[in-house]
Amino acid sequence: MPRFLGKLISVEDAIAKLSDVLPNSLPSDIIELVNSLGLFSAEDIVARIDMPEFDRSAVDGYAVRAVDVQGATVNNPAVLKIIGIMKPGDKPDKHVIGPSEAVEIHTGAPLPRGADAIVMYEDTMRNDDEVEIYSPVSRYANVSRKGEDFARGSIIVPRGERIRAQHIGIIASNGIDKVKVYGKLSAAIISTGNELIEPGKPYVEGKIYASTGFLVKAYLEETGLFKADYLGIYPDDPGAVREALAYAVSRYDIVFTTGGTSVSESDIVRDVVEDMGEWVFRGVAMRPGRPTSLAVVNGKPVMLLSGYPVAAWTGLELILRKALIEKYGLQGLERPYAVAVLMRSLPNRVGYTSLIRVKLSIEGNKLYAEPYMLKGSGILSSLSKSNGYVVIPGHVEGYSEGEEIVVRLI
Amino acid sequence: MPRFLGKLISVEDAIAKLSDVLPNSLPSDIIELVNSLGLFSAEDIVARIDMPEFDRSAVDGYAVRAVDVQGATVNNPAVLKIIGIMKPGDKPDKHVIGPSEAVEIHTGAPLPRGADAIVMYEDTMRNDDEVEIYSPVSRYANVSRKGEDFARGSIIVPRGERIRAQHIGIIASNGIDKVKVYGKLSAAIISTGNELIEPGKPYVEGKIYASTGFLVKAYLEETGLFKADYLGIYPDDPGAVREALAYAVSRYDIVFTTGGTSVSESDIVRDVVEDMGEWVFRGVAMRPGRPTSLAVVNGKPVMLLSGYPVAAWTGLELILRKALIEKYGLQGLERPYAVAVLMRSLPNRVGYTSLIRVKLSIEGNKLYAEPYMLKGSGILSSLSKSNGYVVIPGHVEGYSEGEEIVVRLI
Repeated sequence: MPRFLGKLISVEDAIAKLSDVLPNSLPSDIIELVNSLGLFSAEDIVARIDMPEFDRSAVDGYAVRAVDVQGATVNNPAVLKIIGIMKPGDKPDKHVIGPSEAVEIHTGAPLPRGADAIVMYEDTMRNDDEVEIYSPVSRYANVSRKGEDFARGSIIVPRGERIRAQHIGIIASNGIDKVKVYGKLSAAIISTGNELIEPGKPYVEGKIYASTGFLVKAYLEETGLFKADYLGIYPDDPGAVREALAYAVSRYDIVFTTGGTSVSESDIVRDVVEDMGEWVFRGVAMRPGRPTSLAVVNGKPVMLLSGYPVAAWTGLELILRKALIEKYGLQGLERPYAVAVLMRSLPNRVGYTSLIRVKLSIEGNKLYAEPYMLKGSGILSSLSKSNGYVVIPGHVEGYSEGEEIVVRLI
Repeated sequence: MPRFLGKLISVEDAIAKLSDVLPNSLPSDIIELVNSLGLFSAEDIVARIDMPEFDRSAVDGYAVRAVDVQGATVNNPAVLKIIGIMKPGDKPDKHVIGPSEAVEIHTGAPLPRGADAIVMYEDTMRNDDEVEIYSPVSRYANVSRKGEDFARGSIIVPRGERIRAQHIGIIASNGIDKVKVYGKLSAAIISTGNELIEPGKPYVEGKIYASTGFLVKAYLEETGLFKADYLGIYPDDPGAVREALAYAVSRYDIVFTTGGTSVSESDIVRDVVEDMGEWVFRGVAMRPGRPTSLAVVNGKPVMLLSGYPVAAWTGLELILRKALIEKYGLQGLERPYAVAVLMRSLPNRVGYTSLIRVKLSIEGNKLYAEPYMLKGSGILSSLSKSNGYVVIPGHVEGYSEGEEIVVRLI
């Protein structure tokens, strides 16, 4: 066990502990509906009206009294007098239908008073101001009933949902043009390591391009909950890292570090954090991402992520994302899932939660998940070529080839 | 058949015809990698270096020559002389290992010259400048080989991929700090209908709140390919609609109209479009969304969508999205999919492509899809409560309860 790490805690405990030290609430703001795409609703959005707001025709045809067209056939049609026409936007009392009367009606128009069904054009023949009806209809045939889609007072978009195009449609249909949404937390990212060089700079043998900080910034922004600043690369120099961390915890809601959490003597971040704050946990029983750690410095959570992109990503995915969902009730952050047939067996080290990236493919009506088998948390290609992942809980010894497993889609 | 519609064409033909009249290419621009999240790569992004760039230690331990530790056990350890230490960022030729020599090595450090394997700390015991090795290793054990993750010249992010956090990580790791991405098409949305009132205004009986235009704008923006302006509601007045359409086709790359495509006499949009431009198709054999039509006015595609939000959404989802993918090669626009057990049978009207929204749920390791059964294209609640959809092709009579079907996730 690397000496840096404390007693490894479970992923579940890590989520709960991070949740504990996240800011107690997210900022929120009331904004124009049209600007809310991708943000999280900060309230249950409730229907202000019934939908439909009135009994409405679902087709083009004639509004009738069902009783008047009972038994109508092509050879023995019901003949009704047309007393008018209803279009979308008309009021329901524009026409009142009496016995043996009909009103021509367009899709979306309110059902005129007295009518209780619509006969479609294809079952009718018009002769001037009369219409022959060739088929009976049951009551409320071809009518969208008031409130059948949703009732006034019902929740149309729950708090914590991420607002998508389809939500904007349903919110607008209620006449709502402003919504309360969650604002963003500010996050700083500090990368450390003498071996790192900035992308765009010429390559130097033995060095590696800094990528994990960029990945973390983009991951945070993708959640829709963070405004993230990448503060750059710091050398393995305690003074420089201390200064950067002090700046970050004074200005930001949360701080992420990448690198500096392996066993090596160059683990400057560990020493600086230990000196400036309190540990919450040091190491998580998960693979990859075992060194993932959490401290509180100046009252702010400081999450120490691996310098390896895949391990850092795993820490964000299995711990941060879940903690955000738990703390703020953001079901809109959950990944969609699928069930797929595993194409190779996946052994697990019991006691560890493992995340294995997979590539999904479909053949006929079967979905298959092929795991990326290259070892090591540095396997960058898995980041761009996989489209899902499997989580093996610590108490499970593994999954067998051919087994149906749950895959989270990314 | 409503008189407005022409011969209904298949969804596949509609996709091809829309693809034909879309702008020939998307604009593109070279931007900073950190600003590229959510945009589409306009080029194959190619690895500039091997990853790893050098044989690299995947663990903390000692770099050795495998031949020197053959047969090593706890009772009969191999004893090697420690000649130095390798840390991440060191050059591979910092140390050269000879027979019975070892170098202490940290995860991520280059393999020193002469070494061909790493023994992990747990299988060693150090005594000053000597180390006892308790276990043999095979050649290249615990070594990430140069280029094993990806090789220089290989494609790390293909053209047409939507850039996600994980892509930014892998691009940065190649030292790349700028990327060529597709810019956006400009789109105008015109809503028509005397029955419409703007959200935020007081409710008027018989009227309905305009929502489809908002939905279309948000849908377009969500694709990441459009800058969309909602031009507002126009009354069923040919002069006003003509003026709006003339403005839109002179200023925008593509125009969408909502409403005004039913059979009713108030189909002003149809008449104005017919007068100002050429039809490409009038009506598609799909449900919902049959009235979806396409014209070219002033050289610009004008897509006529239903006024009903669910029908308009279907036109965008089944036709526009697919045409964008086909025309511009944007695999990043494809919806993810799952396979689920259908909870109710879904009959289809042969000849029509049907889109049925479903709610996915999981029980054990089985995924179930429950269709929304309310009839009609106006069913707004399906927009916010479903998380996927099933497409039934025109040649299929339907799917049975219990059948495994492909669900697209939204």
